[in-house]
Amino acid sequence: MFWQRKDLLGLKYLSVEEINLILDTAIPMKEIIGRKIKKTPTLRGRSMVTLFYENSTRTRSSFDLAAKFLSADTIGVAAASSSVAKGESLRDTGLTLNAMGVDVVVIRHPASGAAEYLAKYIPAAVINAGDGTHEHPTQGLLDMFTIREKKGSITGLKVCIVGDILHSRVARSNIWGLTKLGAEVRVVGPATLMPLDIEQMGAKVYTELTPALEGVDVVNVLRIQMERQQQGLFPSLREYSRLFGLNQARLELTKPDALVLHPGPMNRGIEIDPQVAYGSRSVINEQVTNGVAVRMALLYLLTGGEYDAISH
Amino acid sequence: MFWQRKDLLGLKYLSVEEINLILDTAIPMKEIIGRKIKKTPTLRGRSMVTLFYENSTRTRSSFDLAAKFLSADTIGVAAASSSVAKGESLRDTGLTLNAMGVDVVVIRHPASGAAEYLAKYIPAAVINAGDGTHEHPTQGLLDMFTIREKKGSITGLKVCIVGDILHSRVARSNIWGLTKLGAEVRVVGPATLMPLDIEQMGAKVYTELTPALEGVDVVNVLRIQMERQQQGLFPSLREYSRLFGLNQARLELTKPDALVLHPGPMNRGIEIDPQVAYGSRSVINEQVTNGVAVRMALLYLLTGGEYDAISH
Amino acid sequence: MFWQRKDLLGLKYLSVEEINLILDTAIPMKEIIGRKIKKTPTLRGRSMVTLFYENSTRTRSSFDLAAKFLSADTIGVAAASSSVAKGESLRDTGLTLNAMGVDVVVIRHPASGAAEYLAKYIPAAVINAGDGTHEHPTQGLLDMFTIREKKGSITGLKVCIVGDILHSRVARSNIWGLTKLGAEVRVVGPATLMPLDIEQMGAKVYTELTPALEGVDVVNVLRIQMERQQQGLFPSLREYSRLFGLNQARLELTKPDALVLHPGPMNRGIEIDPQVAYGSRSVINEQVTNGVAVRMALLYLLTGGEYDAISH
Repeated sequence: MFWQRKDLLGLKYLSVEEINLILDTAIPMKEIIGRKIKKTPTLRGRSMVTLFYENSTRTRSSFDLAAKFLSADTIGVAAASSSVAKGESLRDTGLTLNAMGVDVVVIRHPASGAAEYLAKYIPAAVINAGDGTHEHPTQGLLDMFTIREKKGSITGLKVCIVGDILHSRVARSNIWGLTKLGAEVRVVGPATLMPLDIEQMGAKVYTELTPALEGVDVVNVLRIQMERQQQGLFPSLREYSRLFGLNQARLELTKPDALVLHPGPMNRGIEIDPQVAYGSRSVINEQVTNGVAVRMALLYLLTGGEYDAISH
Repeated sequence: MFWQRKDLLGLKYLSVEEINLILDTAIPMKEIIGRKIKKTPTLRGRSMVTLFYENSTRTRSSFDLAAKFLSADTIGVAAASSSVAKGESLRDTGLTLNAMGVDVVVIRHPASGAAEYLAKYIPAAVINAGDGTHEHPTQGLLDMFTIREKKGSITGLKVCIVGDILHSRVARSNIWGLTKLGAEVRVVGPATLMPLDIEQMGAKVYTELTPALEGVDVVNVLRIQMERQQQGLFPSLREYSRLFGLNQARLELTKPDALVLHPGPMNRGIEIDPQVAYGSRSVINEQVTNGVAVRMALLYLLTGGEYDAISH
Repeated sequence: MFWQRKDLLGLKYLSVEEINLILDTAIPMKEIIGRKIKKTPTLRGRSMVTLFYENSTRTRSSFDLAAKFLSADTIGVAAASSSVAKGESLRDTGLTLNAMGVDVVVIRHPASGAAEYLAKYIPAAVINAGDGTHEHPTQGLLDMFTIREKKGSITGLKVCIVGDILHSRVARSNIWGLTKLGAEVRVVGPATLMPLDIEQMGAKVYTELTPALEGVDVVNVLRIQMERQQQGLFPSLREYSRLFGLNQARLELTKPDALVLHPGPMNRGIEIDPQVAYGSRSVINEQVTNGVAVRMALLYLLTGGEYDAISH
């Protein structure tokens, strides 16, 4: 089976078959990471650029390693040191990278829709690595890969996403992807941080943690961004932690084998208790490994790789 | 045919034969960029460092990809995070990189003559990627490659360079290279931004755009650097654009098949109109591709590659 | 012979046999740097991350090239652009890099003990590239490699370390390593910059340069850090230079074939005179080359390489 699209812009736009193709392709990729000799020549001669207008070690490093494990070349462009600082438009920066012979552009940008805008103008494949409050599809995919691997299937699972839903592209990508694959998605957080259109996306809204956690199979704890508190969108970190922080006692409300996810980096002691973060239910470190696997799968598929070729 | 020099410091110092050797070597290199599998093992085991004392995504990325397409290793040293910040001299930084086993040092520096100074002290090959207002020879070479490819030959062509000639290392490298290959070079811009020695370099000086553009085969539009305006060197951006901005109407003054070049990043709407920048005469994106090809050729020649070996 | 430890945290913790294993393994590695084709596939598929919480072009580039000469993949994480800026703990950053499949983490950190702390939490190999005022073991090893190569053996040599001993992790690693291998180590510098426990480490303390230099085989000149002077820890740079700067006249006090070392970057004219720095006794540039060789040896040993396999 082949990937048909030029780009990966968001999980909203993908079919169930496309999501499953990516997740299935990531399985053999994960085995490559675990092997002693990690490198395969699959993407030799292909090149990827990370074009990041926001800082992110985690996501950039994950893409970088994914490319290198497949023998692709990578270059990094950080906004601070780039032509952007000289006022160049995103379109021109994209056209320039494309003209240099780059095959894949991985973009992170503070503006929602930036990845789609870029994808329209350049022939190279574009991967959205987070655009404003819109989507962060590779994070959504790695969360889904992790859940599917542990639970066997996503269909019928109850997943609770906790935190600042309004500003979270991670939440959006999770909601689109998980509901497509048949999960029940609950979101919970301060009412001031809840988007108006959330129920139309297919999620159930809660404003208190206790009922939201009851009987769920998965808790996905979002990172609290300190600057939101300064904007007066929630009372205080202490208050936030008291109302929405995930600790061991609250985890008891979930199913006994419920998983705990967090996209990182964690504010330990605020949105998540260390005991939970490093506890037996936590799959946070596995999410990181799966993130590399999912990105390897995407790079492979977007540069013309065939699922059947790698899996057999 | 072999390259005889250790370094590439400027087009002023090269013979016609040397310029042609680089341009000819870049032809098969460009084909490598276009191929699906880009990588060749030509420079396997060789290493290049980009030592940049000024920011430049464009030039640094182009050298980086050129090296990687030939399987060389690359490391980047940015002045902000370097020993330079600790007060180390350029000579010592160069000696250190040389002692680490680096084969080629690509340097960008705000001081005119920095590349030559460095080249004197280290055995490694030095490529000048822009030194103050002196030269930017790889930009000159990629401009010449682009013109030659489109026009067949440079001899006898009329080329008009528009902008801040005084501070432009791009203009200087173009003037040296193009006049050597037999073009007629015109320069036009505000009188306050015209160097005194420009006619000795072999260029014809104009201070009004209309006569300068008349009947030319190529227009090379320079980037306006905003800080010059703040220094009072020209009235205002609006005024600059009115007098020297290249728009569709003015392009009509040139030959019907005239090419439009710009070294990027563009200030669209100031020195160049979007209609022209993205129009049918524009070869701006091809310049970028050719920049990678020319840099591949240089890396190849400077590390001992033979033209005859790659071209047949 | 095999390397038995997971990490390299400091020379204090190594046996004489372990130090010799690293130095011996670096000999064939140095030959690889000198060869025209530098790359060997030894570490193909292995990956190294440089996790630097302090700037250092020199050390980071040296590790980067060492890894690349052995065909390992490298990624760089700089504190300014990292999750650290988002408040992530060192432990979580380490766990994340480990989960991404990285084999070796090279850490530089302003806190003494940071490398050891990290090593406890992650299965990946950790190399201390400088932690606070504690140790900088790869610098100590490259200094020892340089001395051993030039003098045949370290046993019985007199080595004088000049400068700010109190804040120098380079001095500490040198003292531990050199005394283990049987050298007599002297330290000299302003009394305000002399640690209280220095004699317990096995070094002889001097506060005047003349007697300290008398008859030594090696002078290792430390870099003066300007900020210490601002803290009032020594009178002035001029005064420091007058009392402890190494010039040609003072070098006459040492043995006629004494070596001059400096970890770089140099403040020429302050702690070392240019005549000495670039003179015939100086092995400063060779230290840099040896630094790459020693780091290649470490990367090789820490990822399971066997000394006997590479040396025969």
